[in-house]
Amino acid sequence: MSERAEAAGHRPAPAHTHPDDVSLLAALSALADPVRLQLVRDLASHPDWTLSCSNFDVPVGRAAKSHHFAVLRDVGLVEQRDQGTKRLNRLRREEFDARFPGLLDLTLRADDTH
Amino acid sequence: MSERAEAAGHRPAPAHTHPDDVSLLAALSALADPVRLQLVRDLASHPDWTLSCSNFDVPVGRAAKSHHFAVLRDVGLVEQRDQGTKRLNRLRREEFDARFPGLLDLTLRADDTH
Repeated sequence: MSERAEAAGHRPAPAHTHPDDVSLLAALSALADPVRLQLVRDLASHPDWTLSCSNFDVPVGRAAKSHHFAVLRDVGLVEQRDQGTKRLNRLRREEFDARFPGLLDLTLRADDTH
Repeated sequence: MSERAEAAGHRPAPAHTHPDDVSLLAALSALADPVRLQLVRDLASHPDWTLSCSNFDVPVGRAAKSHHFAVLRDVGLVEQRDQGTKRLNRLRREEFDARFPGLLDLTLRADDTH
């Protein structure tokens, strides 16, 4: 089995939630975490589909990182697709902005020096 | 000892934090709670200093309610002052808006029907 087929066989395609189906409480809870804030900021500073999960340098293990991405998917902040052995990412900026105007802008502001 | 003096004697004046000294992460964490969201919304729908802590009908005990108010004070969302046996409240709308533009408006939007 090739590496690509093996990866495809072992990992189910990620499930997604549209921001329209997300509560404000869930959205705030997803963003109220330092690792997830960093993931979102990293995503915002790169073009869509250019970062795979392994490209994010956050101080947590692999399983925890997967969990954080799942939380971001579940509130409609991140879209993922598998390409070979890589899971590529896109920030769902437009859809999330439409549902929660201003929240992502606030999150991405660089003034959070406290 | 009168009831008023007794209350004053037993309860230290509440400590406050200005929103300018609050991180985005702390602000999001404070709002990412259903009871605190309700407290903030109730405060926003009443004039300043008209609600005492006992006026808020939330499904938690007295100690938990005090904790939630302390969290809201610590992120600069609520100002409190004691008047006799009552602890009166004010939403720090203007100061919080200046620090986190749009976050309170988003919180107070009535569209969160999920």
